[in-house]
Amino acid sequence: MLRIHTLRLPLSNLSLFSSQAQKPRLNNNYRTMMSYTKAASSQAFKDKKLLFRQLFEKDSSTYTYLLADVAHPDKPALLIDPVDKTVDRDLSLVKELGLKLIYAINTHVHADHVTGTGLIKTKVPSVKSIISKASKSKADLHIEAGDKIHFGDLFLEVRATPGHTLGCVTYVTGDGSDQPQPRMAFTGDALLIRGCGRTDFQGGSAHQLYQSVHSQIFSLPKETLIYPAHDYRGFTVSTVGEEMQYNPRLTKDEEMFKSIMENLNLPYPKMIDIAVPSNMVCGLQDLSVKPVDASSN
Amino acid sequence: MLRIHTLRLPLSNLSLFSSQAQKPRLNNNYRTMMSYTKAASSQAFKDKKLLFRQLFEKDSSTYTYLLADVAHPDKPALLIDPVDKTVDRDLSLVKELGLKLIYAINTHVHADHVTGTGLIKTKVPSVKSIISKASKSKADLHIEAGDKIHFGDLFLEVRATPGHTLGCVTYVTGDGSDQPQPRMAFTGDALLIRGCGRTDFQGGSAHQLYQSVHSQIFSLPKETLIYPAHDYRGFTVSTVGEEMQYNPRLTKDEEMFKSIMENLNLPYPKMIDIAVPSNMVCGLQDLSVKPVDASSN
Repeated sequence: MLRIHTLRLPLSNLSLFSSQAQKPRLNNNYRTMMSYTKAASSQAFKDKKLLFRQLFEKDSSTYTYLLADVAHPDKPALLIDPVDKTVDRDLSLVKELGLKLIYAINTHVHADHVTGTGLIKTKVPSVKSIISKASKSKADLHIEAGDKIHFGDLFLEVRATPGHTLGCVTYVTGDGSDQPQPRMAFTGDALLIRGCGRTDFQGGSAHQLYQSVHSQIFSLPKETLIYPAHDYRGFTVSTVGEEMQYNPRLTKDEEMFKSIMENLNLPYPKMIDIAVPSNMVCGLQDLSVKPVDASSN
Repeated sequence: MLRIHTLRLPLSNLSLFSSQAQKPRLNNNYRTMMSYTKAASSQAFKDKKLLFRQLFEKDSSTYTYLLADVAHPDKPALLIDPVDKTVDRDLSLVKELGLKLIYAINTHVHADHVTGTGLIKTKVPSVKSIISKASKSKADLHIEAGDKIHFGDLFLEVRATPGHTLGCVTYVTGDGSDQPQPRMAFTGDALLIRGCGRTDFQGGSAHQLYQSVHSQIFSLPKETLIYPAHDYRGFTVSTVGEEMQYNPRLTKDEEMFKSIMENLNLPYPKMIDIAVPSNMVCGLQDLSVKPVDASSN
């Protein structure tokens, strides 16, 4: 299994792949449209251009995120938390936008849907799957806190946010005036909009989740945009400041939070027995393994 | 019925309400977070700050949009295409963000869900409902092509885009270096992402829709963001450029488009007999009229 350890230097600017030869080339000259955010501050954006698309899978209320550096000649792109059912939609969009998909990334081993990373790799073999080392799952690349995932001149910073599962991470867009402002945090199930992921299976821990959110997410600038893995009420985005003020669980003290989490009385996740074993091999290294069709379950 | 005719001067900067006395005052000093877009061009944004939230109603796959000028001391806000079922969610968000909701706006008389404008007015009586004059529906304010709807120092420009219904309009964020860039077009059902609204009822006309989209939407800069009233496949945004290149219907010539639209063989909209009569009084001027509870149908 290919496995590349990335440098854990929070301020470094080293690429996950340093070799130019590994960078994809594109022939598609379609003029990619740009949609990106800018800080309220006077920081210059310096021609870095993030193309950003939020995509929704209705059955599991999952958000998939497409990010690309469209100022880079290769237009390198990544998908965060793709879903197997919507892989064709996502790859079609990538193609139409003239992007080169290089990474398919998970925030954690999902229990409610089958990840699309394996299916993506069967369709675009050059794509590398990424998940945390702590997830103990199969993938091409395993990341840890402090690692950076570079795509073009933009990057995601990895923060360990266990508690929903042992291996949960949050991906945060880069810090610095040459990166998108405000920053964007892809929090998986660690922090949801006015909520959070459950902590009663997959090595979950209310204590750990509370510490994770407060130390790793609420420590970000208040204007940081929160993009979770799910929303069940139709919200698409929040901010660190909003969640620090209005999250009905995380604004409580830790004891109260633990009490809330222990008394949720949630049903057993209906997809867990299908999704977790499948997602443990999210990179689908063995391409002879047929992807599970979640739509039939 | 209160009715204010606004000036139809595309380059004017006159407010729909010119009196300061009519501007709302806010006591809530909660620091509102900002999320806005910036042009690829070098145009300065000049401290104008659009707070923008896209909200989703799952049953009818409807998008509601919240826009506010958070650089203005009043933080005036508007909602485009609110849904009755999600009014409480929307008003709660408005309150949390410290905004002053001044307008509840429809792109057209919807046939698939009951608008939330009436319900909003029962809960926040100072809110003014807005719909096109051509819709022949009740509302506090009726707008026509060329009108501008001001909220703080930002505004929406009205473009007539009939064809799905006679009264369909598209709201486009203002033109100019002091307005959000790229521009954002709220297209209702006239233009959907890789699709368009049906044209077989409510005064629909494939000829008119084709002309509307090409003359009023495809004439906008290619990087203009398209925010439709619905998406059924999980897309949240597109651009004029993308739709000009990839929309499977609108990229065809008019004859082909008409043929496609005539042969869709769509079922009768299940909500139409409830939604349309209710939405014809979307402003719910007569507050004794009880809002229809679409969730029970």
